[in-house]
Amino acid sequence: MVEIRRYLHQYPELSFEEVKTAKYIVEYHEKLGHEIRTGVGGNGVVATLRGGKPGQTVALRADFDALPIHEETDLPYKSTVDGVMHACGHDSHTATLLVLAKVLNRMKDEIEGNVIFIHQHAEEKPPGGAIGMIEDGCLDGVDVIFGQHIWSPAPVGTIEYRPGPLMAAGDAFKITIQGSGGHGAQPHTTKDSVVIGAQLVSNLQQIVSRRIDPLDTAVISIGSFEAVNAPNVIADTAILEGTVRTFKESTRSYIAEEMERVIKGTCLAGDVEYTYEYQKAYPAVINPVEEIEFVMELAKSVPGVTAVKKVEPQMGGEDFAFYLQHIKGAFFFTGGQNPEVNAIYPHHHPKFNIDEKGMLIAAKTLGVATLTYLEKNK
Amino acid sequence: MVEIRRYLHQYPELSFEEVKTAKYIVEYHEKLGHEIRTGVGGNGVVATLRGGKPGQTVALRADFDALPIHEETDLPYKSTVDGVMHACGHDSHTATLLVLAKVLNRMKDEIEGNVIFIHQHAEEKPPGGAIGMIEDGCLDGVDVIFGQHIWSPAPVGTIEYRPGPLMAAGDAFKITIQGSGGHGAQPHTTKDSVVIGAQLVSNLQQIVSRRIDPLDTAVISIGSFEAVNAPNVIADTAILEGTVRTFKESTRSYIAEEMERVIKGTCLAGDVEYTYEYQKAYPAVINPVEEIEFVMELAKSVPGVTAVKKVEPQMGGEDFAFYLQHIKGAFFFTGGQNPEVNAIYPHHHPKFNIDEKGMLIAAKTLGVATLTYLEKNK
Amino acid sequence: MVEIRRYLHQYPELSFEEVKTAKYIVEYHEKLGHEIRTGVGGNGVVATLRGGKPGQTVALRADFDALPIHEETDLPYKSTVDGVMHACGHDSHTATLLVLAKVLNRMKDEIEGNVIFIHQHAEEKPPGGAIGMIEDGCLDGVDVIFGQHIWSPAPVGTIEYRPGPLMAAGDAFKITIQGSGGHGAQPHTTKDSVVIGAQLVSNLQQIVSRRIDPLDTAVISIGSFEAVNAPNVIADTAILEGTVRTFKESTRSYIAEEMERVIKGTCLAGDVEYTYEYQKAYPAVINPVEEIEFVMELAKSVPGVTAVKKVEPQMGGEDFAFYLQHIKGAFFFTGGQNPEVNAIYPHHHPKFNIDEKGMLIAAKTLGVATLTYLEKNK
Amino acid sequence: MVEIRRYLHQYPELSFEEVKTAKYIVEYHEKLGHEIRTGVGGNGVVATLRGGKPGQTVALRADFDALPIHEETDLPYKSTVDGVMHACGHDSHTATLLVLAKVLNRMKDEIEGNVIFIHQHAEEKPPGGAIGMIEDGCLDGVDVIFGQHIWSPAPVGTIEYRPGPLMAAGDAFKITIQGSGGHGAQPHTTKDSVVIGAQLVSNLQQIVSRRIDPLDTAVISIGSFEAVNAPNVIADTAILEGTVRTFKESTRSYIAEEMERVIKGTCLAGDVEYTYEYQKAYPAVINPVEEIEFVMELAKSVPGVTAVKKVEPQMGGEDFAFYLQHIKGAFFFTGGQNPEVNAIYPHHHPKFNIDEKGMLIAAKTLGVATLTYLEKNK
Repeated sequence: MVEIRRYLHQYPELSFEEVKTAKYIVEYHEKLGHEIRTGVGGNGVVATLRGGKPGQTVALRADFDALPIHEETDLPYKSTVDGVMHACGHDSHTATLLVLAKVLNRMKDEIEGNVIFIHQHAEEKPPGGAIGMIEDGCLDGVDVIFGQHIWSPAPVGTIEYRPGPLMAAGDAFKITIQGSGGHGAQPHTTKDSVVIGAQLVSNLQQIVSRRIDPLDTAVISIGSFEAVNAPNVIADTAILEGTVRTFKESTRSYIAEEMERVIKGTCLAGDVEYTYEYQKAYPAVINPVEEIEFVMELAKSVPGVTAVKKVEPQMGGEDFAFYLQHIKGAFFFTGGQNPEVNAIYPHHHPKFNIDEKGMLIAAKTLGVATLTYLEKNK
Repeated sequence: MVEIRRYLHQYPELSFEEVKTAKYIVEYHEKLGHEIRTGVGGNGVVATLRGGKPGQTVALRADFDALPIHEETDLPYKSTVDGVMHACGHDSHTATLLVLAKVLNRMKDEIEGNVIFIHQHAEEKPPGGAIGMIEDGCLDGVDVIFGQHIWSPAPVGTIEYRPGPLMAAGDAFKITIQGSGGHGAQPHTTKDSVVIGAQLVSNLQQIVSRRIDPLDTAVISIGSFEAVNAPNVIADTAILEGTVRTFKESTRSYIAEEMERVIKGTCLAGDVEYTYEYQKAYPAVINPVEEIEFVMELAKSVPGVTAVKKVEPQMGGEDFAFYLQHIKGAFFFTGGQNPEVNAIYPHHHPKFNIDEKGMLIAAKTLGVATLTYLEKNK
Repeated sequence: MVEIRRYLHQYPELSFEEVKTAKYIVEYHEKLGHEIRTGVGGNGVVATLRGGKPGQTVALRADFDALPIHEETDLPYKSTVDGVMHACGHDSHTATLLVLAKVLNRMKDEIEGNVIFIHQHAEEKPPGGAIGMIEDGCLDGVDVIFGQHIWSPAPVGTIEYRPGPLMAAGDAFKITIQGSGGHGAQPHTTKDSVVIGAQLVSNLQQIVSRRIDPLDTAVISIGSFEAVNAPNVIADTAILEGTVRTFKESTRSYIAEEMERVIKGTCLAGDVEYTYEYQKAYPAVINPVEEIEFVMELAKSVPGVTAVKKVEPQMGGEDFAFYLQHIKGAFFFTGGQNPEVNAIYPHHHPKFNIDEKGMLIAAKTLGVATLTYLEKNK
Repeated sequence: MVEIRRYLHQYPELSFEEVKTAKYIVEYHEKLGHEIRTGVGGNGVVATLRGGKPGQTVALRADFDALPIHEETDLPYKSTVDGVMHACGHDSHTATLLVLAKVLNRMKDEIEGNVIFIHQHAEEKPPGGAIGMIEDGCLDGVDVIFGQHIWSPAPVGTIEYRPGPLMAAGDAFKITIQGSGGHGAQPHTTKDSVVIGAQLVSNLQQIVSRRIDPLDTAVISIGSFEAVNAPNVIADTAILEGTVRTFKESTRSYIAEEMERVIKGTCLAGDVEYTYEYQKAYPAVINPVEEIEFVMELAKSVPGVTAVKKVEPQMGGEDFAFYLQHIKGAFFFTGGQNPEVNAIYPHHHPKFNIDEKGMLIAAKTLGVATLTYLEKNK
């Protein structure tokens, strides 16, 4: 498992460009004799292990794309590709799933149902690979799906989870205020995009402060305000870009609409034109209570697991969310932090690394969940 | 003149209720044998002196209403009416004009044209008396109109004037924001009028700061913000009232429209209803350059006049403005301040008083202007 | 129980004025032979039942004050006091506790410890009665405290609860902006309280939208904005009053401080003075997990209970919170809604009423919790 | 005159780099036998013509720097220097003054006093050349100074002027808001520079709308708002740059201070650091009433002059302002627009050109003003 992960780590590929990694995965499953579909919804790979006995079908998902980050570690197996790095641990997810596939394959005669291995490309880049793979049928006939993420904020040995909302929906927006520029000494001959953009920033605050249920969670952040001109030239255009985080679909839609109302009204008041793009990225990852508690109960007995902790939701996103919009399942975080091996940096950091023992814990947890689920639901 | 003024001072009448004062004026002109029209546009009185020789027609205007202020002086001739006071000097304007009428009457055979005495009611209360008197024909056949205001900020002996804009247009507005109230702990179930009203106040600032020519003059003041509730009850309604001051008609109209745009946009952004009333009161008093300089040149030689000063425009209003929208003319300020007679309080103050010598100066200036004008334009 | 409740309902007394009700309670306990302390922290009454066997001490709390609301029901036992009404159900709380005291008294020889009945005055009016009773020793020697509120949003038969935060802290604030007024035409001679107050309202929004953890809960509502003047007079003073709701003490303190920072900065920018009062009312009611789950587990078996539901926190407050700051315990809502008896109106409504069967359920739940607790912890 | 201007037009030099142009000017005056000082306050040249009779001293000023603009005309004498152009007409100012010097030199025996020709470098680039030349003594012994600007908005034949404020002071400011960035999903761990910058833009509006006398003129324009980040990254820093225009020194200083107050308060409210730089550029050009009216009265009789118009102040700046802070004088605009010779583009335009007949008018006006002044004040 370590060997596979380190190999993949040396040859990272960016989202939607993961051709060699997909080929590697395919070859691995071919050796195991699994049924294989390639090019699923893009570079996705779906391998099927048919158990010796009839039963339900469990899907296990691992993603395999890397990030446009230049690795700054001194690892012997560091990235060989300039500016591309497995800085989020998807290499480990793939290694975990491949070795687990091999193990389950050995016991296939005893398995009461089927296991589908969903190797998903492009998790890092919206719209992501999941949506395409689902449209291309990767969930057909699947009863339940399990997945996990190696997790650098948690020490190795800890598993973190949450029934219900685990990770937020993270959308993006871009607002262009089209005023009419001119000389700074003649404001009345212009429509000042900076002043109207500033009003808009203030007005947008009131969506979160006044219009969202205080018991619900929502963030609207305007990360970028761009109206760069000579000091004595009034700005023609101001461009505002930002992100929205929510857990409920209704809140998410409401914010997208409410923002448009605020933009429309503010621009009407300022007598300027605007464009507004709201890009829905991944929805929130919502764990069905029954399935996540089922998996977590089993996790407590997995060797190496020292703690199974219920945690607060994370504001970051994951396109595993799409699978859970279609079928039941569970998603959890497997601790990967360990100062002893210098695995202390956050995800997406150029020095990111994991304690590889986490992979084994993840594999065992997914494995026991799969087998127990199939046995219970035969 | 002093006697008349003191008599009127004792019997002040509020705007649109000046019945006895009008009667007093009528009787005075009757004794002089002038043609008289009463009830002109309300309580207005128009008296005509026909000169012995043919010529043009000069109108002289004096207003005669008082204010709802309770006089706090110790004058022997103080107001006998509780809560009503000649606190702006209109009593002096009337005394000035009546005595001037008497003097001109004596020399009527020599006068080369006619003089019309416009005694106007209700200057203090928009829409004012001027507009009604004009509609009722008080300017018919008139070539030029002169008027003045006794002026407590200027010392007696000084005359103040300005070619072009002398006094601002002063309009009033009322905005009602109709949100939807509720419990302070549940903002998302409400539409918070206070928050949207606050946005509106800020947004309205940008009309003056950004949309008006910096070389032009405009004021938008929100005097009143009323949304009074229990602290833990979100406001259903917020009422904003204020005043607008301008000198140009185009700026005035533009602000009235631009305010509606800002209100509409802000309320759209906040998803609330609104009502908006904009009441045009008096327009700006704009002195035609030729006429005011003609009168002021003459003023320099009037006995008692020690200075004729060009001054900055005043932000306060006067309905003499309406006459100047119809015909040419001139309006100026006659100094009335004098610490020796305790005439030091501003207009509309309960201790307001004037140095009565100002009346004589005013009468002489109007008289010489009238006669010279008629002679020059015969 | 019904009789007691109806009697109390007819003779409601306002917070801090509950003299007769306290006397009624005292007489009831006297008949039972309980040790009694009166005047505890005001009008509070504490009665002690000493069990026949040694053990721990359980406190049970019921409040007994009424509201300044004029009852609009047609009940035969409606309030006899004009403008005062038991519109929140504290009459039922008292009846529940008194009858429960009688029942426990009968079995006192078997009781393995003591039961303290805390009859609390003045729950409705901050600072509330709890804080005074605690200072006056009502919790001395107490190991655990249980309490409940009859709950009109829940149908009779349902019990609602929440481990951790159940009810919010609800504080009040008052901000006075002291500018300097003047004529609406002369803004530069004034410091405009309306404009600065409006900025402040907008600026305060950003505490909730930007400075509070999105996963935490906070509300800042400005219920009242008072700057009522003539339209053409710039406001000298603006008074803002509002409420703050939080669940965590750290968030609560942070908001109080952060508001002051925003007020201070905004007033510095506007060159005006201010006063700021922040009145801490009741803290959040935070149920210790172990105790509330212990009581709710027992509640499931109470006759008449058809559902025990975990609910979202309530934004409203309760001074039971103070007891839980000192010792462990549990607080829950006992359903009281029933359309059949017209018990459909919200708390504090002039037609508020309850299904009295809720009282019995409450008494049984508190009773079984008390006895089981003492037995388990002997 | 045309020849000189066209020669200079071909060899433009940027502000503070005008070495060859200065040399050219020096050689011209040397031929006339004038006393010459070079390197005055930089590249400035001062030449003195001593009249044959005793009297006062008149200074005449012309600037001679060009602009970093690439000429786009097809003139035979277009700029030979890539990216540098006499796009503001300073070539014409110099030609005008040199030829006028020659003419006055011929009649020097009759002249009752002295004439000083101030050839100023670096008018286009603050701090400008005037300030250095004054410090270096160019006004020593001077009684009055006259200057003019060729003016493309006015048709050739027209002279425009204004007693009092003619051109505004135009200052520049730069504000850096130093918050603390972070992930867009975690606003509470950041100090959001965009939100605070937006508040600041809104708050700054109120200086013009509320704190400046409505009869005075002031502009504060924020031309640039720069906080460019990834959409989901909260901005660490926001940089605001802009310009301030005023006519009165007191208003100018007040705004600089008041801006700091607003910045300080807003940043305190937002708990962020800031830097604030306010760069005073040129003060307002204020024409003394007597001198400008003296010159304009004479201008009416200058051959070629068809109109002498009093105009509104210009919001743009000129460092001639510094001379008028030290001594009396006059500055006016000489029309240079003429569609027949395609002189229709505004100043600083790559196709800017003038009708060269304007130069002759300027020379004659300055000449007659100089001679008449000396004669009147001998």
